[in-house]
Formats: sequence, C-alpha cells, structure tokens
Amino acid sequence: MPDVPPALESPPHRVQITEVGLRDGLQNEPVVLATEHKLALARALIAAGVREFEATSFVSPRAVPALADAAALVRTLRETPDLHLSALVPNVRGAERALEAGVDSVVLFVSASESHNAKNVNRSVAASLAGFEQVARLLEGSGVALRGAIATAFGCPFEGNVPVRAVTNIARRFAELGATHLSLGDTTGMATPPLVAERINHLREVVSGLPLTLHFHNTRGIGLANVMQGLALGVDRYESSIGGLGGCPFAPGASGNIASEDLAYLLEEMGIETGLELEGLIDAARLASEMMGRPLPAQVSKAGPRLALAECTAVATARG
Amino acid sequence: MPDVPPALESPPHRVQITEVGLRDGLQNEPVVLATEHKLALARALIAAGVREFEATSFVSPRAVPALADAAALVRTLRETPDLHLSALVPNVRGAERALEAGVDSVVLFVSASESHNAKNVNRSVAASLAGFEQVARLLEGSGVALRGAIATAFGCPFEGNVPVRAVTNIARRFAELGATHLSLGDTTGMATPPLVAERINHLREVVSGLPLTLHFHNTRGIGLANVMQGLALGVDRYESSIGGLGGCPFAPGASGNIASEDLAYLLEEMGIETGLELEGLIDAARLASEMMGRPLPAQVSKAGPRLALAECTAVATARG
Repeated sequence: MPDVPPALESPPHRVQITEVGLRDGLQNEPVVLATEHKLALARALIAAGVREFEATSFVSPRAVPALADAAALVRTLRETPDLHLSALVPNVRGAERALEAGVDSVVLFVSASESHNAKNVNRSVAASLAGFEQVARLLEGSGVALRGAIATAFGCPFEGNVPVRAVTNIARRFAELGATHLSLGDTTGMATPPLVAERINHLREVVSGLPLTLHFHNTRGIGLANVMQGLALGVDRYESSIGGLGGCPFAPGASGNIASEDLAYLLEEMGIETGLELEGLIDAARLASEMMGRPLPAQVSKAGPRLALAECTAVATARG
Repeated sequence: MPDVPPALESPPHRVQITEVGLRDGLQNEPVVLATEHKLALARALIAAGVREFEATSFVSPRAVPALADAAALVRTLRETPDLHLSALVPNVRGAERALEAGVDSVVLFVSASESHNAKNVNRSVAASLAGFEQVARLLEGSGVALRGAIATAFGCPFEGNVPVRAVTNIARRFAELGATHLSLGDTTGMATPPLVAERINHLREVVSGLPLTLHFHNTRGIGLANVMQGLALGVDRYESSIGGLGGCPFAPGASGNIASEDLAYLLEEMGIETGLELEGLIDAARLASEMMGRPLPAQVSKAGPRLALAECTAVATARG
C-alpha cells in the first residue's frame, strides 16, 4: 500500500454500512419478492458480514405492497443473533407493529421539502413532526431506539434546492425527541459534494451530539463522489443497497441507491474497515439480480474484485 | 452555494476535460460507426463546448477496424477552428500518418505491465520505449506536440498490482523524449484513491515539470471517487468519454470510461470551471446512445440535470 498520506483530511478508520436493499431497494421495484426470497437475500448478506439492516417499512400494505410482509420478515430475521434491525414507520400504528415484530430501532421519516412530504405521506412537514411525539412517547422505556431520517435533504425533485435551514430545523426536532441517529436521505440523487459539506457542517453545529448517516442515491452518477466528501469530513455511517437495487419513480432509467458492494470495495481499498467481505457481497448482488430478473446497476459485482485476474493470451489488440 | 470550505485540500479552479469517446469509447464497441456519424457526434460535443479531443488512433485498420477512418476523421475535424486534436500512434508509421492528417499532438502509449503491453502491441515495454525515439525525432520542429500515455498505470488485468516504479520509470523516459503531457490510464478500472494519491505524489517528484492527466474507467463504479482524489491533490486534467462509451474486453458487462457528462456535472456542482455546457453534453450522450443502439452507462443523461424538476401530484407514496 502507498506510503503517502491519503489526501483526505480526516477519513474514519471504520465505517458502519447499513444495508437498505430490503427496504429502499425493493419498495419501488416492479417485482415483488416473496418473504422467503427476501430472507434468502438477507442470509447471503449476513454471510458477507452485514449486521445492520433497514429491513422494511411498517406502512400500509396498500400503499407499498412490496413491503406488506414487514412483520413476518422482521420476526424471522430476529432469529439470527447480533443483528441490528431497523424499520421505517409513518405513524404510531406503524411503530406499534414494528415494536411487536421486534425491531431494534424505529426510523421516523419526514421530507425537508413540503411538496415531497405531501406527495409521500400526504401531510405538511409540521404535521409530520407533530405526529412524531406520540411515537417518541410510545418508545420511552421500550428499549427500542428512535432514529430520524430526513428525505430530500439535498434537494427536492419538485421544488429544487432545499435550504439547509429546513434540514437543521427538522434535525433539532429529532434531537429533542431523543433520536440516537440522524440519516440524511438523498432521495432522488441531488446531493453534490458542496451540499454534503454544507449540511454536515451546519448539522454538527446545531445537533452536535447526533451521529450522522449519509444515504446517497446514484441517480446522477456521483453517489460515491459524495461519499468521498463525507469521508473527508469524517462521517462514518452510510446506507446503501446491494446491487444498487431500487430507483426513483421521478427519474426513469436512473440508478437507485449507491451499491453496497461498490461502497464496500471503495472503503476496503482505502483501508477503512467495514466488517464486510467483498466476495460475499458479490454473491448476494448476483442473487439479487437473479431474483429481480435484470442486471442491477452496481459495477464490482459485474467486473469482479480488483485482483480477479484474466488470463493473458498473445493476440495484440493495439488498444492504447 | 454553501458558505463552508469544500473540505478537499486544494481543488483546482478550472479543469480541462479531454473527450476520448471517439477513440477509447469506440475502439471496443461492437457497432462500427461510419465517419459521418462520428462527425455528427463530434459536432454535438463541440456545440457543448468540447475543444479537446483524443480523436482516434493511427493503428492498423486490421487490428482496430472501428478506427480505420483515422485520417479522414482528423482532416474533417481540422476544419473546425480552435480544437486541440490528439491521436494515439503505435509507431513511426502511425505518427507519419497522424502528422499528415493534421493532429495537434501525438500520443505515444505503453503499458506499465509487460503482459498487457505484449497483449496490446506485441512487444516488451523496453522495445516500446526504444521505438518512441524515432517518433520523437520525427516530431522535432514539426510543431506537433508529443504526449505520453501509460496504460495499466494503476493495475494490470493479467498481473494485478503494478509497482509505482514501473510507472515513474516510463514517465521519466517520456520527459526525456520531450513529452508535454503525461496521461495515466486506468485501462481496466483498477485505480483506487490511495493508488491515485501514491502515483500522483511520486510522479510529482520524479517528473515535476510534466502536467498529469488522469484517465479513469468506471469498471468498478469508483471512477468519480478517484476523480475526487485527483481533485483533492490539485490535478486539473481528466479524460472521459461521452455517455461512458467504451468498455473492456476483460470485464464483460462492466462500464467503460467515466462519462463526460457525469464528470462535467460533478465539476460544475463543485464550482470548478470546465467550459462545457451540461444540456449540450446530455444531447450528445443521447445521440451517442442512439447511434450505438443501446443505453450507455452514464447517469446524468438519463436522470437529467439536478434542477430538471418533476411535477408534483397529490398521491401519497409512503416511500420514506
């Protein structure tokens, strides 16, 4: 390995990757996976070292049929020891279902932009925040953690730029509600390195005690460039989906979440620990691709690890 | 724009992007474009602000049929003022043809690994370097610049890791031959941020006067993460292909060069000047995709620019 400094200011030594493929990856896919297939994919991911899953969302099965098996999925995953299982909940009813199923943490989500929040949960940002109090009370003393997630934190597909203040105001509220983590969601791939730096720096002032997680989509191809910016600022929590599963209904043909195997490959090559094993992730990505019946956008699972060498035959190709 | 520092140590204010789609992008594609189609693509790129093209390669038409029109292409492009046109040449015969056609610079290329050089040009690295002297003499007083390109500069698909000394030794030779620029080619997508940093730092010691160009492939999804590392170290020259045209015969299904529009988008969002206009690049990428008869790997041309907004309808999606 190189004997020169890594040039990024303060990259972390270890990064926690939360696998969101079972939730964010599957919720927009046209193929609805059977619970047993989701479990097979989860087992492949666990074999590759994944220990933290955003497993599902306790929303109305009518709204998101792909996640109608939320309770059964969490209950079965729960049988594997040492996993951290989180799930999104839109309201107190969802939180009750999530607790009953046995999650470790409940993720409350709201968009930083009014129009996306209206589109997503049919209410204002203020109404979403007000509803969170009931969930926070429910969680008190339950041993289940509350996590906050801010969608469209780097831009809104309907409104465009999202002021940093819209993000910090919500973050402050999550901190008051006792959230243990805050995830910034780049819902439709509008994050850029300067926006990442801006939001991180502001949040570290406003909610200094709240660990930040970055959740990027690769919609415009710069998901891992945004990770580089996060790493340069020392952020050590990222969310990704195996194979790059997922996508966005507002950007047809565009890529979904950043891919877990590409992210893990990048971090491993940078000497940053993830606890994940690349060959195992590639196996899981290939399984996911088979299940979805299409090639997924991730690259490492197609090209293979860096040192998976080809055989050299003697035909000159003159390719430069 | 954010009022916080960009977190990268010393990003450049302006970056020169060389479009290599007509050469590196097309040489491995199964579809052979007619010269008039290449020219139509070039015109679209010129309309988007592209001024520097690696236009073709003066190799044997038998070895690379897709580039058999090298002379005709350069002669016609030459009619447009203010372009910098470069072309690869494998030997003095190729250089003679390139000069006759009217290039601004001749690119001599050699691999940093013996087996890739043997596979590519059927000779040893030393034999390639020896052959360059004849070309350098031919160029003396011609007004045509000599540029050096090192293939497999970050790893070899047959040998694996490539010692940095293999790269610096070749670089030194290029400097002695009077090269004005040095391009480091990530031929099969094996570059990683630490390897990028290592090679840049060593080359700046060994050939301090030789401007560096980084040429990344997105084979393993981290092409733009490598660009971020290059930017952090102040490198201000990159090569890319429109739409991410190209690919690698040793990594089936894998992506080709980093895409010009994704790179330009990233740089523009970082406040770095490129002289390119994103909408025009997207038009050119869509034209390239039509010509090749397949979707190309680039993302921005599918998703649209960051602020190409969608209309918000009122149906709740509960996607989190």
